[in-house]
Order: sequence, then C-alpha cells, then structure tokens
Amino acid sequence: MTRQPVDLILTGKYLLTMDERMTVVADGGIAVAGDRIIATGTAEDILARYEGADTLSEPHGLIMPGLINVHTHAAMACFRGLADDLPLMQWLQEYIFPAEARLTGEIVHDSTLLSLCEMIRSGTTSFCDMYLFAADVARAAESVGMRAWIGEVLYDFPSPSYGETENGFACVEALFARYSGHPLVTITVDPHAVYTCSPALLQRLGDLAAERKARYVIHLSENQEEVAACVERYGRSPVMHLDGLGLLNERVVADHCVMLTDDEIQLLADRGVRVAHCPESNMKLASGIAPVVKMLEAGITVGLGTDGSASNNDVDMFGEMNTAAKIHKVLRMDPTAMDAATTLRMATIGGAAVLGAERSIGSLEPGKIADLIVLDLDQPHLTPIYNPISHLVYAARGADVLHSVINGRIVMRHRELTTLDEGAVLARMRRLSEQIRVSGER
Amino acid sequence: MTRQPVDLILTGKYLLTMDERMTVVADGGIAVAGDRIIATGTAEDILARYEGADTLSEPHGLIMPGLINVHTHAAMACFRGLADDLPLMQWLQEYIFPAEARLTGEIVHDSTLLSLCEMIRSGTTSFCDMYLFAADVARAAESVGMRAWIGEVLYDFPSPSYGETENGFACVEALFARYSGHPLVTITVDPHAVYTCSPALLQRLGDLAAERKARYVIHLSENQEEVAACVERYGRSPVMHLDGLGLLNERVVADHCVMLTDDEIQLLADRGVRVAHCPESNMKLASGIAPVVKMLEAGITVGLGTDGSASNNDVDMFGEMNTAAKIHKVLRMDPTAMDAATTLRMATIGGAAVLGAERSIGSLEPGKIADLIVLDLDQPHLTPIYNPISHLVYAARGADVLHSVINGRIVMRHRELTTLDEGAVLARMRRLSEQIRVSGER
Repeated sequence: MTRQPVDLILTGKYLLTMDERMTVVADGGIAVAGDRIIATGTAEDILARYEGADTLSEPHGLIMPGLINVHTHAAMACFRGLADDLPLMQWLQEYIFPAEARLTGEIVHDSTLLSLCEMIRSGTTSFCDMYLFAADVARAAESVGMRAWIGEVLYDFPSPSYGETENGFACVEALFARYSGHPLVTITVDPHAVYTCSPALLQRLGDLAAERKARYVIHLSENQEEVAACVERYGRSPVMHLDGLGLLNERVVADHCVMLTDDEIQLLADRGVRVAHCPESNMKLASGIAPVVKMLEAGITVGLGTDGSASNNDVDMFGEMNTAAKIHKVLRMDPTAMDAATTLRMATIGGAAVLGAERSIGSLEPGKIADLIVLDLDQPHLTPIYNPISHLVYAARGADVLHSVINGRIVMRHRELTTLDEGAVLARMRRLSEQIRVSGER
Repeated sequence: MTRQPVDLILTGKYLLTMDERMTVVADGGIAVAGDRIIATGTAEDILARYEGADTLSEPHGLIMPGLINVHTHAAMACFRGLADDLPLMQWLQEYIFPAEARLTGEIVHDSTLLSLCEMIRSGTTSFCDMYLFAADVARAAESVGMRAWIGEVLYDFPSPSYGETENGFACVEALFARYSGHPLVTITVDPHAVYTCSPALLQRLGDLAAERKARYVIHLSENQEEVAACVERYGRSPVMHLDGLGLLNERVVADHCVMLTDDEIQLLADRGVRVAHCPESNMKLASGIAPVVKMLEAGITVGLGTDGSASNNDVDMFGEMNTAAKIHKVLRMDPTAMDAATTLRMATIGGAAVLGAERSIGSLEPGKIADLIVLDLDQPHLTPIYNPISHLVYAARGADVLHSVINGRIVMRHRELTTLDEGAVLARMRRLSEQIRVSGER
C-alpha cells in the first residue's frame, strides 16, 4: 500500500488531543501537511498511512496543542525585574510610565522578539497582545512565525507610539489593512480601560470592532481602585458602565475581571463576553483573585494569560496553569475546584474560544491548523506517569517543551529556535537594558 | 606570588552571598577546599589568590547558596499524580493510605532517589524529610551526597515500616546511633501530628528530642479539620495543646501552621518555635494560606518547604518561592508584602535557621560549608537583568540550575548528575509505578 506523502509526522508516548472528549492516544501520532493537521491516531496507524518529509519521533514525548496566552504585553519583557514589590501607583508612575515614554518602535520590536523566545521555549504558540507600537509587535511575530492577536492600545492621552488619540485610529486602520487575511496575525481593537478612555472613545472603538468583526480587548475590573474610580466618575462599576454604553458583546475580551459581583458574572455570561484570566499578575500586583470558578459555572468562556513580564515576571503558561489550579482551590477552600482538565482547557481550546479561533486552533483534530508542542516526559519531575493531564498542570514546566510547531512550521526543534537568532536577541536586550536602567534611575 | 591550592573555584557574573547584608558581588568568585568555603570575592581576586584543582567559570552564571527545603516527604515522588483534585479524605483514604500500606524499604529508597534527582536539578542542597522507612531515606541521601534532616514518623497506630508504635523508638534510636556525627545526615524526632499521636507519645518523643538535642518535627495546624478535631478532643487548639504539654520550644519545627490566631503566633514566637511554610501544598489541598507575614513580623524563623510530591506536585523550590512571594501579596492585598529578598531568605538562610544549621549553611561565607548552586542567566526569561534577587524569585526556574555543590562535592555539573545513575532511577520507577497503579485501582 502506498503511503500518502505529508510534510511532517510526529509520534510520542501520548497524543493529547484536547478534543471534546479529551481523548488521549497512547503511543500516538499526528500527520501534518502544509499548515494543516491531516490525521491523528496511533503512531503505528499514522506511520502506516503517511510518509513524512520530516519526522520527529519521541518515545517519551507528549504531543499536545500549543498553549494560547490570551493576555500579555510582550514587549514589556525589557522591563522584567526593573521594579518589583512596590505599591502599584509608585511602580507605574516612577518606573513603568517613565520607561514607556522613552520607548521606540525598534525597542518594542526587539523586546517582543525576546518575549517570543521565552514563549516558544515554554510552549506558547499563540498570544494576544495589547501594547504600544503594535505594528512592531506584529512585525516581530510575523518574522518569527508566531500566531498572534495584536492591538494598538488607545486612551485619552497622547501615546508614545502615535501621538494624539486621533492618530491612533489611522494607526489601527493601517494595521487592519496590512494584516487583512494574514495567516498568523489578526488585528484587535484595544481600548486600554474605562478609567483611561472616555465613553466616546470606548464607543467609537466599539463601532470599529463591529465594523471589522474584530476582538474588542480591554482591561476590565482589574482591581478595587478601578471599580471605585469608575463608580465615583460614572456612578456605576466598570462592567455596568460598559454595558450602559452598549459595549458588552461576544467580541469583547475582558482582561482580568478580578472584581465582579455575581450579577455582573451573569451579565457577562448573558452578553457572551470572553474573559482573560491572569492569576499570577493579579497576585503579584495584589489586585485580588478573579472568581473564575463562578464564571465557568455561569458558562463564560475563560482563557489564561500571563499579563506582561513586568508584573508576572514571566510568560510561562505552564507556571500560569499551575498557579491557576491551586489559587482557586484555596480561594474556595475546595481541593476539587479548578481541576487539571478544566485548567488545561483554559490554556488551550478555551483560549482559542476567547479569541474566536476555536474552529482552527486549540485542539489537535484533522482539518485544524497545526499549532502543537511536544514535551519530554523522560525527566525525574515527570516520572512516574499515572495521569498525563495532571502532570501537565501540576508538574510540567515550560523548560520541558522539546519541539514547537506553529502553522505547520517547526519553530523549535530539540530546544533550538529555528526562526530567530536567539543569541543576537539576548545581546541586543542587554545593551538596551543599560539605557532603560539609566532612565529608570532618573 | 604563589597561589594557595584549593579543590574548587567557581566564578560567575554574580555571587549572591545571602550574608546579613545580602551582599551581591558582580563578577564574583568563590574558593572551596574540602567541604568548606575558603574565600569569596571578585573572580579576579579569587583567581589571583587561589589555584583550583577544578574550576567552573560561568560568565553568565549566578552563584548562590543551595536551597533548603524544610518540609518534604521525598519518597512520595512515587505517588506523584496518582490522584489529584479530590477531597482530602478521599485522596488519603482511597489512594495514599492504601498505597503507603504496601510500601517497602526498597520502594522508599528508590522513590527517594527519584526525588533527589529532581531536588538537585532544581537547586536544592538540603532537605528535611518526615516519612516511613527513614533508614532507607537516609541511605539514599547518603549515597547521593545530599544533605538531609531525616526522621521516622511515629503515631499511635502500627506503621508499615516498624510495626507497633513501641518498635518505632528502637527504630529512631538505631538512626541516631547510625548517623551520629555524620557530615550529611542529621536525625530528627518526628511525631506525625496531634491528631495521630497521644499526649503520652508526644511527650515521650519530646523527651527524646531534648535528650538527643534533635529537631522535633511535627505537622501543626495544617487545616481547619485538624483544629476542630483537637478542640473537640482536648478542648484546645493544636498549638495550645502542645504548649499545654510543655512541648513548644526552640527545637520544634512546626510544619504548615496554616490556622493560627494572632495570640498563637505570639506564643510560637515567644517559645522560639521554627515554622516550615508550604504554600503550594496548602493551596492544592485547599488547607488555607499560612499567616507568614505576621509570623515574620512577630520574629518567628520561617523556612520554605514543598511538602511531598503527591500534594504539590513537585519539589522545585524556585516554584515555591515564586508562589510564596505572590500568595502573601494577594492575601494581604499589598504588593509590597513578602518581597523578593524576604522570600529568598526563607529558602536559604531562614531554612538553615529552622534546622538549627545557620552557622554552617544557608549563606556563602568563609568558614561555612560549601553547599551552593550556579544558575545559567543566559536565557530569554532571565534577560535583561536589573536585579538578580528579583529574578531568582519571580523569573528563575529549577531548570536554570547548571551546577550544584554539596559539602564541597560537585553533585551536578552542566546538568549532569554525577553521583547517581539517573536513567536507572527513572527506569526502576516506571516499573514500580505499574505495581502502585494496580494497587491504587483495587
């Protein structure tokens, strides 16, 4: 029997599909042609039916969908560790804002590359980014071959990126024009938050998102100060304020959602709003713990995000899963809360659904795009194996990822990044950090 | 000028001493002879004054004291992921207790070796272990060259290890006899908890600890159920119960201490009790969050522990530091709480003080024992570097540890374990897990 030629075959000890039944195939395999998954099954079956131009066989490997980071500011990698353990306002006003005022497109590009090195090395294959100089973020993602949802952040004051707010719209339009139909980069509409955007700006951006059928990405109810300021200014909470403006709908990706009443949870569910949960950043900034178990019970689609490296301080989604699974157990004083499967769904197919991409990524099924990773299970901290799903959430680390494939292309092979010069990225960042350090000390 | 011969010289980009002033030497070096630190300083100075029989130079390395895990059950590595996301009693009674009933000294030995692989790979150089078949735990630690405080756990019912409780005392005496004056292994006295040990047993073990000048290691106030049961049985909380028995003193290492009143915190401080804080296990089992910031404010010496791999599910102290720093910020809604330096002290010199060993380990100072690790900073997630202490707590991972030295001996070199056959350990554990899985399914 002639085998069908394909571009890439991967086999491993486990194939974790993350399909609706959470199918795990022992001694599994997957065939990829172009950017698509052609078939999944046992390795024996795949190798009998397909002939790979390239084959990666890992007897101790676990093949799974790449992780989806639904909220980050990748370029903030250049500020990682610049200032920690400070009150939020001091951190922002004395360190982050002054440093951001000196950003350029080149710095954002180079810092995004740094974050992409870390993301690929720790198993992320898609990220949703809100930041300044979004064109440079997109340029970095495109050059590396990373899948990304990218938005230029808008607010009522001038931006280091585009100047006056009005110019921001041209900036966003240019992004839509440049990336229309792009295989990797999808443009989003990103009002910063209700405390930095006037109702008029929020609504104009809402119209733009509707017109472009784009995600409307906004920081929402991140902490008590935001809620108090919104109540003082508009007489209602951030969630009720957005709803009052008619802006809560199925295009909204609401980042954080730490401070929510039960009624607001129901409202978000009713409106089809998607939520990006960032537990580590919320803990580190002492914002609080988002009521994610209640959100999931209400039927809200929730994904997992790291937030930026300045407030985490990493973009490792394995660490984020571990924290998410544990923090909700202790919050609810219930060891059965946020079980491993639920947590893993948030980081894969759930994240895909947050971005409206659940039909193309987030699980390994024939016809879907080949965004996948292979972990090396042949390690003390992953031995023995009773339950691979439990291991992924409670024991695995980003450093366990061996190979990464995005859009059918190998971007990391045996922990070597194949689409960028990592040494050069690190060297540039070291030079750049000397400037940033000096500006931070002023 | 003739250079003084030493056994080992290490140099790196940073030498983090963890001395009282938290001195960090840029381009630092350290000289080791036998089991001792001879000198610390700049690499230039060290290389000018000493000639190493062996030299490890890492231009991107960070040299620091090895981490000290003050509470674990190393051999429970064989149960990692056997059962998760379950109510505590179901987890214990349906999975852990039946599996433990089938343990043998050989299984405990092999499982401890597995945990030691993981500990060394993630930067731990000392651990304090409470478990069954302690002689086999000690045998494993000794053979690998790991520093350990080890106790055979005692309780009112028969043990799979020594049978009737009375036999447990002979078992402990044999351990004291075997390891008296040992350079690596120190024996502790380990009553399991107030709910499993009668007052008579607690007191008899207290007398033994006093006589042997040994640490008295006990699970204490781990969760609300323990407190409620103690109040019901003895009319007072676990802490007040121990104090009523005259057993709270400076030899006590109290594991967990999740449920404490402010008065109890003051009492523990007054009595000189040391505390082992295990945030990840406490979160995963939904026990609660120990009031560690208050304990530190009261002057209590607190170290950091992972607990066993069945309830964490790892023994990675870098992950534990990261969680500890974040959980107390969100618990207190204060981003300045549990700063990086405080957290790092808990995992190093603080842990040494919990074990009464702060004059020999926990910091890198001339005359102290050479227990140290070198991290590789030349990685995306550790670039750039503004503050190495912040990086160690908020960004570094166990997998970043390149070399490990215990008692002056290199136990890991360029991530190769030098004192045990890791492949054989993993292979044995895979075979063993098949038996454990079957017994778990009965």
